[in-house]
Amino acid sequence: MSTIDPSRLTAESALNRMETGDLTSRDLIRACLDRIDAREDVVRAWAYLDPELALAQADAADERRRAGTAGPLNGVPVGIKDIVDTADQPTENGSRLCAGRRPDKDATLVALLREAGAVIMGKCVTTEFALSAPGKTRNPHDPECTPGGSSSGSAAAVADWMVPLAIGSQTGGSMLRPASFNGVYGLKPTFGTISRAGMSPLSRRLDHPGIFARTPEDLALAARVLMRRDPADKDMRGHAKLGEAEPLDTPPRFAFVRGPAWSRGEADMQGAIEDMVRNLGDMATERNLPSVFETALECHGTIMHGSAAQSLGPYYERDRAGLDPITAERVERGLAVTARDFLDALYLAETMQDALAGFFEGFDAILTPAAPGQAPRDLSRTGDASFNGYWTLMGAPAASVPLLTGADGLPIGVQVICPWGQDARLLRVCRWLADRVGEWR
Amino acid sequence: MSTIDPSRLTAESALNRMETGDLTSRDLIRACLDRIDAREDVVRAWAYLDPELALAQADAADERRRAGTAGPLNGVPVGIKDIVDTADQPTENGSRLCAGRRPDKDATLVALLREAGAVIMGKCVTTEFALSAPGKTRNPHDPECTPGGSSSGSAAAVADWMVPLAIGSQTGGSMLRPASFNGVYGLKPTFGTISRAGMSPLSRRLDHPGIFARTPEDLALAARVLMRRDPADKDMRGHAKLGEAEPLDTPPRFAFVRGPAWSRGEADMQGAIEDMVRNLGDMATERNLPSVFETALECHGTIMHGSAAQSLGPYYERDRAGLDPITAERVERGLAVTARDFLDALYLAETMQDALAGFFEGFDAILTPAAPGQAPRDLSRTGDASFNGYWTLMGAPAASVPLLTGADGLPIGVQVICPWGQDARLLRVCRWLADRVGEWR
Repeated sequence: MSTIDPSRLTAESALNRMETGDLTSRDLIRACLDRIDAREDVVRAWAYLDPELALAQADAADERRRAGTAGPLNGVPVGIKDIVDTADQPTENGSRLCAGRRPDKDATLVALLREAGAVIMGKCVTTEFALSAPGKTRNPHDPECTPGGSSSGSAAAVADWMVPLAIGSQTGGSMLRPASFNGVYGLKPTFGTISRAGMSPLSRRLDHPGIFARTPEDLALAARVLMRRDPADKDMRGHAKLGEAEPLDTPPRFAFVRGPAWSRGEADMQGAIEDMVRNLGDMATERNLPSVFETALECHGTIMHGSAAQSLGPYYERDRAGLDPITAERVERGLAVTARDFLDALYLAETMQDALAGFFEGFDAILTPAAPGQAPRDLSRTGDASFNGYWTLMGAPAASVPLLTGADGLPIGVQVICPWGQDARLLRVCRWLADRVGEWR
Repeated sequence: MSTIDPSRLTAESALNRMETGDLTSRDLIRACLDRIDAREDVVRAWAYLDPELALAQADAADERRRAGTAGPLNGVPVGIKDIVDTADQPTENGSRLCAGRRPDKDATLVALLREAGAVIMGKCVTTEFALSAPGKTRNPHDPECTPGGSSSGSAAAVADWMVPLAIGSQTGGSMLRPASFNGVYGLKPTFGTISRAGMSPLSRRLDHPGIFARTPEDLALAARVLMRRDPADKDMRGHAKLGEAEPLDTPPRFAFVRGPAWSRGEADMQGAIEDMVRNLGDMATERNLPSVFETALECHGTIMHGSAAQSLGPYYERDRAGLDPITAERVERGLAVTARDFLDALYLAETMQDALAGFFEGFDAILTPAAPGQAPRDLSRTGDASFNGYWTLMGAPAASVPLLTGADGLPIGVQVICPWGQDARLLRVCRWLADRVGEWR
C-alpha cells in the first residue's frame, strides 16, 4: 500500500493506484475527509458535506471497480459549486433565499460525473447566486485574504488538498480569478461545451461551467467526461467534446496581451508577468488587441448585468431585503440596462470574436493576466474580474496557470487563451508552460 | 411562338418555354415592362426600375441559354424589396434618410439570384425601414385599399402580373399579410435558411427574407436557389436547404388554430375560414394552442420593438424629424424596452417553440388566418400583423395561400404552417390545399 497521504494525489495518480489495487476509493475519500476535518475551520470551503454519503459513494465505486465497471473517474471525489443542482444534497445558491433548497434532480454535469463514477463529495461555497457577495470561504494560503469568487469554495478546496477536482463556473471572472488567488489550475472551456442545465443561471450568453484541478492533466480527465452535448442546454455548440490534441513538438508561439484592464493591475503582478514573458524570449511577442476591444469591459458589464436582472429579477421582487445588498445593487444595475444597449453589446462582442479569430493567426495562445494581483487582504469582497470578463465574452477556452508569485508570497495565475474549440490544445500549452516556467510553489 | 402574354406566365412555364426556344428572356422582360408601363401609375409597386438595365440582363441571360450555361432561374425577372442591397440599383430602405443610397455590393440573396441567372428587375416599394409607415403602393385589386406591408411593392407587383417572383421580408407580418391582401402566395421559410446579409436589419431574432409568387411551385423554384448557408449571416441554421419532400399520397392532417389574435379578425374572414375548415371534414381538427401562447403577441412585440430600437436607433438619433412619425414612434417604443423584458420574451418564445414541436404531433400542418380580413380601405396604414408576428417568432415555415374571398370580393389568404425545417413539405401542402379548396379568383 502507498505511504503518501492519498489527499495529496492528483486524480490521475489516484485512478492509477485504484486501478492497480494500491488504493481504494474509501481510503481516498477518508483521507480527503480527514483533510477537510483538519482545515475546514480555517478555510470554510464547504456549503454542505455529508461524510457518510461520500463514503457510501466510495464503497459503491470500489464495488464497481471489483465488478469491472469502473468509469473514467471511478471513486474520485469532486467538489461541486453550490449553484449546481444535486438530487442527494441541498443546493442553496449561496443565498438565504434558497436556504434548505433540495433539487429534485441532478444537474446534467453532476449526472455525467456520477456516470463516470465520481464521488460527489459535497457542495462548495459560492458567492450569492454566483455574483459578488462573498461567502464564508477564506484563502487557504492566508486566511485573511479572499479566495476570490464566485467559485470560492471550489478553488479553495482544490488548493487546500481537500479534493483533487472541483466544479465552478464563470460569467465574469469566477473561475480564473479564484484559480489565480488560490494557486491552482482553472479551466473555462469553450462556450457551450459543458451543459448548464440544472445550474442557477446568471447569463445564458456568458455562463460557463469550469473545472479546478492541481494539474492540467486532471483538468483534461474531467473535461473529457463533462464536455458533451445536452439538448436541455439550448446554447450548446456543435463542438462539445474535448477531443485530442497532438503533443507539442515545437514550443508554442505566444502573444502577450496587456489588454484593456492592464491599468487595473498591481505592480507586482505586472512585473512578474513581464519578467516571465521576457524569459520566454522569441516564443512570446507582445501584441495589442484590435481597437474594437477598447469597449470590451463595458460590453461585458452590460451583458452580464442585463442578463442577471432577467435571471435574478424574480428573487429581487419577491424579497429584496433577503438578498445581500451587493447582489441587490447588481440586479438594480441590470434592471436599468435597455434592450438596445444589450443588443449593441451582443453584436459588438461578435465583432470582437471575429477580430480575435484573425488575431490568433500566427499564434498558438494568448498570455495575459488572470487577476490584478495576488488575493486582496479583504474578506468583504472577492476581487476584480476585469481581466477575465471580456475573455468570458469571447467564449474561447481560457485557463489560469499558477506560475507567478506576488509581493507577499501568494500565488498569481497567468491566463492562457486558445482559439475557440481548442480546449485540448490549451491544456497541452498549460503543461508546456508549467514545465518551462515552473509553478509558483 | 406562344400567343399568351408572357407576363402572365409563371416562372416555371416561362423557364420551360425558354428552354424549348419558345420564349426569350428579352420577350419576357419586355412583356413585364409593358405591363408595368400600363399599370404602374395605379399600382406604384416600384421604388426603382431601369428598363434598359433589365433588358441588358435579359440579353445576357439569352446568351447564357445559347451557350448552355443557363442557371435554374435563367432569364426570369425578380422584384427585390428595397431594403435588400443591389450594387447596380439604388437601395433606399423606403426612407428619406437613405435617398439616393447606392450600396457597393449585392446582398447575398441578390447574388444568389444572379448566380441562378435571374434578371434583377427593379426595386419594390417597402414601408420605411420595413416597419409600418406606408410607401406609395396601392392594392392592385382595388387602388383605394392598402397592399399591406412592409413588402408592399413586392406583393403587389406579383399580384399585378408585373413579375412572377419577388423578394420580400417579414419581421412581424410583412410577407404573409401582403400576400393575403394581394391574393398571391407568400413563403416565409424556416428561420435562418435565407441569408439576410446586405439587408437593412430590423431584428436579428425575427427578420426572415421571403418569396412571393403566383404558384407554390414558383415559390419552390426560388427557395431552392435562395436557401443556402452564408457565413455572413451569423444566425443561419445548419438546415439551410429546401430539400425534397415526398408527394402527398394521403391527405394532410390539419390543425385549425384560431390563435391569440382571433378576436381581431373580421367576421367575413372568420366565417370564410370556418367554412373552409368545415368543408375539409375529417382532415381538419380544431385545436387550441398550448396556454404559453397566451402572451405570444406581447412577446413578439417586445422583441420586435426592442430590436428595432437597436437597428434604427442611429437613424433616430441622427435625424428624428427625417423619419416618418410612425417609424419614430415605434423606435421610441423600442427604446423603452429593458434588457430584462427582452430576455424574458426571448426565453418565453423558446418555451413556445418547444410546445409547438409537441403540438405538431399528429398533424402535418396548422391552418390559421393570414390576416384579419381583406385589405383595409385605408392607404394611411398597412393593416394588422397580429396573425403573423407570433408565428414569425416561432421560426417555423409559414405560407399564405390565396383561398378565401372577403365581403367586397377581395382576396384573403389562409396561413399554413409546418414544423421547423419542413419547407418543402409546406409547399406540397399549399398545392394540395389550392387544388382541394380552389383559389379565390
